Amino acid sequence: MTIAILGGTGPQGGGLALRFARAGVPVALGSREAGRAEEVAARLSAQLPAGSAPIRGYDNRAAVEAADEIVILAVPYSAHDATLVAVRDLLAGRILVDIVVPLADGDPKAVAMPAEGSATEAAQALLGGDVPVVGALHNVAAATLNKLDRPINCDVLVCGDDLGAKTKVIELIRRLDVEAYNCGPAVNARCIEALTPILIRLNMSKAVPFTHAGIRIWPPSHLPAGGQREAAAAAQ
Amino acid sequence: MTIAILGGTGPQGGGLALRFARAGVPVALGSREAGRAEEVAARLSAQLPAGSAPIRGYDNRAAVEAADEIVILAVPYSAHDATLVAVRDLLAGRILVDIVVPLADGDPKAVAMPAEGSATEAAQALLGGDVPVVGALHNVAAATLNKLDRPINCDVLVCGDDLGAKTKVIELIRRLDVEAYNCGPAVNARCIEALTPILIRLNMSKAVPFTHAGIRIWPPSHLPAGGQREAAAAAQ
Repeated sequence: MTIAILGGTGPQGGGLALRFARAGVPVALGSREAGRAEEVAARLSAQLPAGSAPIRGYDNRAAVEAADEIVILAVPYSAHDATLVAVRDLLAGRILVDIVVPLADGDPKAVAMPAEGSATEAAQALLGGDVPVVGALHNVAAATLNKLDRPINCDVLVCGDDLGAKTKVIELIRRLDVEAYNCGPAVNARCIEALTPILIRLNMSKAVPFTHAGIRIWPPSHLPAGGQREAAAAAQ
Repeated sequence: MTIAILGGTGPQGGGLALRFARAGVPVALGSREAGRAEEVAARLSAQLPAGSAPIRGYDNRAAVEAADEIVILAVPYSAHDATLVAVRDLLAGRILVDIVVPLADGDPKAVAMPAEGSATEAAQALLGGDVPVVGALHNVAAATLNKLDRPINCDVLVCGDDLGAKTKVIELIRRLDVEAYNCGPAVNARCIEALTPILIRLNMSKAVPFTHAGIRIWPPSHLPAGGQREAAAAAQ
């Protein structure tokens, strides 16, 4: 099942393309210019191990048409609405996964939410009720995605108003060996998107001994969860 | 250093009182009625191991007066503003720690934020600039706090506009053997408070094999963090 990644030439979209292709999911990488997308697709493909699915470059509209069902929007926030408008007529029958965080202009440590409340809600308002919008993958660092030798160190919080669409997106994300959780309706994107600048601030801070931290859902220690299983395995 | 916990007769405030007293921090437990606070303080004290600091009951105003510096507000959201108004004149020279989440009326799976954006910001607006307000401890389940034989399975995200006050609150919270992070200005309480109903929804869901999950900040697996140290130790 081919997925499209619009804005796939950026670090977040490119990192997702690598991860999905390695997991066996063919990727149609979209950009405003097909030539640029083809260049980046070739560069990314060269990093993939044998047996990976292909990454192919297209302009954004052709990338949507190449997608069987799921289209991931991974552009900078400044291009969020314009990109959706440019492909809107092709999205009927598909699912839009919005991973965009409305970072404040010139300050990645703050959000500047649109009037709708979040990018996910703005996308749903722009596309109307016929195209389900799912918010996901906001809190995964691009640097992490691009280091294929490391596991993804976070869980993925997924939200949206269409349960069937969310379930499909959760199944897709789990192919990356990460835990993805249904975190409720689209309105919860106001919180989930806003987590990203909190993580960026913390990761930039000299008060902590790390960078590129993510978020994990963490049950009490006597109960199992994805992150705990991984940490326990790493400690053995 | 005695701290006050207003609304300390509820499950969240009572659980915090237990944890702080066991860690050696004397607690002035506040309630609207002194008699009720004394009753609960006695019941909680009976659960504490030898060597713990005392928990004493007071009416909310007397609890603030008994606090050396830090006053934790742990009332239900419906009592948030009225409780602050009732003690406002006593808060000068103290730090208010707001742990209140504005859950929607009748739906703990949703927030209903005040016009100021969050409970923390509403408290700061109500108290004015002379009393620093720090948002913290929103995402710790009351059930977890009250089970003294279990570690607290989450990190604490701390926000507020006064760095000195935040630093003191972070030091206090770390006495509970949890990691507490400076997560930026008070405006970030809009995200941090809103995480709680997302966790409540997830913990109620039949799709996950756990309840009472919290949030952890999770660095890449080659870098150390509190949660990873604990999980690694538990696995050995």
